[in-house]
Amino acid sequence: MSFAQSVLEGNRLALARLLTHIENDSVEGREALNALFPHTGRAHLIGVTGAPGTGKSSLVNYLALYYRKPANGQARQVAIVAVDPSSPFTGGAILGDRVRMRDLAGDPGVFIRSMASRGSLGGLAVATSGVVQALDAAGFEIILIETVGAGQAEVDIARLAHTTLVIEAPGLGDDIQAIKAGILEIADVLVVNKADRPGADITERALRGMLQLAHPSPHVFRNHYKDYALEAFESKNSEDQESAIWMPPILRTVAIDGQGVPELAEVIAHHYQHLTTTGELRQRERSRLRSELDNLLRETLISRWRETVSQEAYDQALFDLVGRKFSPRQAVDLLLSGGDS
Amino acid sequence: MSFAQSVLEGNRLALARLLTHIENDSVEGREALNALFPHTGRAHLIGVTGAPGTGKSSLVNYLALYYRKPANGQARQVAIVAVDPSSPFTGGAILGDRVRMRDLAGDPGVFIRSMASRGSLGGLAVATSGVVQALDAAGFEIILIETVGAGQAEVDIARLAHTTLVIEAPGLGDDIQAIKAGILEIADVLVVNKADRPGADITERALRGMLQLAHPSPHVFRNHYKDYALEAFESKNSEDQESAIWMPPILRTVAIDGQGVPELAEVIAHHYQHLTTTGELRQRERSRLRSELDNLLRETLISRWRETVSQEAYDQALFDLVGRKFSPRQAVDLLLSGGDS
Repeated sequence: MSFAQSVLEGNRLALARLLTHIENDSVEGREALNALFPHTGRAHLIGVTGAPGTGKSSLVNYLALYYRKPANGQARQVAIVAVDPSSPFTGGAILGDRVRMRDLAGDPGVFIRSMASRGSLGGLAVATSGVVQALDAAGFEIILIETVGAGQAEVDIARLAHTTLVIEAPGLGDDIQAIKAGILEIADVLVVNKADRPGADITERALRGMLQLAHPSPHVFRNHYKDYALEAFESKNSEDQESAIWMPPILRTVAIDGQGVPELAEVIAHHYQHLTTTGELRQRERSRLRSELDNLLRETLISRWRETVSQEAYDQALFDLVGRKFSPRQAVDLLLSGGDS
Repeated sequence: MSFAQSVLEGNRLALARLLTHIENDSVEGREALNALFPHTGRAHLIGVTGAPGTGKSSLVNYLALYYRKPANGQARQVAIVAVDPSSPFTGGAILGDRVRMRDLAGDPGVFIRSMASRGSLGGLAVATSGVVQALDAAGFEIILIETVGAGQAEVDIARLAHTTLVIEAPGLGDDIQAIKAGILEIADVLVVNKADRPGADITERALRGMLQLAHPSPHVFRNHYKDYALEAFESKNSEDQESAIWMPPILRTVAIDGQGVPELAEVIAHHYQHLTTTGELRQRERSRLRSELDNLLRETLISRWRETVSQEAYDQALFDLVGRKFSPRQAVDLLLSGGDS
């Protein structure tokens, strides 16, 4: 039986193996993803980002726990994808790997996967979207994509989600840089975690002030999900004219004991409903898939080019670059024109 | 007179204009960089990174001030390049732009440039290295490259430096994630800033413990600067056999009043000397320039490809992708094979 079939039939071991294939970008992984792709598009993809020290992981754990036993409605199948783009060297396992809650560990309705950058950032984004597709096809209804840190890398990965949570915590915000305008603009829901600590009011007030700055007008807000990667292809007839405005709400949680998590889950569901009723979901799907397409295009172009150029030509270009014989741009022009120096 | 000539003659206005050209990737900018490149390689490039809230900017200001009036030796020409990769949407100006110290503002021996991501991360790294080259050719002897945040993006930009400082501060480190293993591995010098605050001992102890984890053996340390972007080209005969080991020292500073800054400057000079005497400087130059070459290759490949494909073909591929007719990989294969669907 093929990987794709096994995964569709709910074989968890096959799923785990497939995810490794996807991370390694193997032929089996690629073929399975092609076969699984028509079965995707049913999951609610939730991105969770924020600076280190905000308690993101605990919050993600409590959210997963809540989706397994919601106050009303049915239990959902939940996957957690924990991405660590800032560990290119160690594979992220030395310090970053946390022990997940015991309550989640034994539950077959929960699937947890940690990913670290082993190559380029582009490669990580491509691998993450593949992993999310496989989990979506495997029937996980909620997929929490958690990223460590709050830089461009995280923005790129959060871009793979339908709903993006940005987590803050008191005490980090005494420096105005702790909350970045760029991050705020991708937020659908803002969370002040560790809200039992002193300074939660200050953090919330700061967030509220910055939200006003970040979303000064509906126009700016509407465009916040716009692609920038391949601007040349930007659709002229904007589809977002009719969508109602979603102002990111600010919630408070205490992830250490799950306070505020049911309310957070409710707001997340509300956002999904908003996306559906306004038609913005389709638009986000389009943005999401365009980002995926662009990432994959970049990675494919560089790896195909690599196959066409000899080690000698590259080494010679680097040698001449170090010797200041060529500028970097001149070296690139030379390599792309055939590589004979 | 050409841009390059004016810049070489010390015309600051021409330099400022050139940097804008470089950021916009204009033809003038490219030509000037080609002409200036043979004049580069004299500056000491110092990367400064660390999580938000650590007081990096103040520390960089005080370092610049110190280089202008060192305790011994001559005043140096100093440039500061402040890069903010986490602000793709706003240009980073809303909250990120700080007022630089008055003591620096009027000094013609100091040049300050802020950069924000306006396009892709790859584009930012390419623009940053171009800006650094121009400043190097213009005769700045010390170039401080400050990046906001501590993700993969920052690692990539820090990779452009000879000496990398990683800044920490007490109070952020209560969560083990606050100090990332990957970041530690790029550090040449570790700084506990805000060392007058409670918890400085704890932070320093935590750093020391993590250093041991991050550098368990000389071998791992020696390889920390290795390229991963185009591994296929990795040189077989490693040049770093004879280099002595540099164990990153941990320093304490209070950037608000410049405490510890002279000692930090001394350690930085010591590191540069270490790089020179062990021959590691040449090796880092090679690594640095290889990163620049690889970044530029990626960006050039995607922009050249963009010119070959029609808007219609791309839109059709995206449409079929959203309709789940193709997987992302199938859409890429189609686009790269000519684009007629």
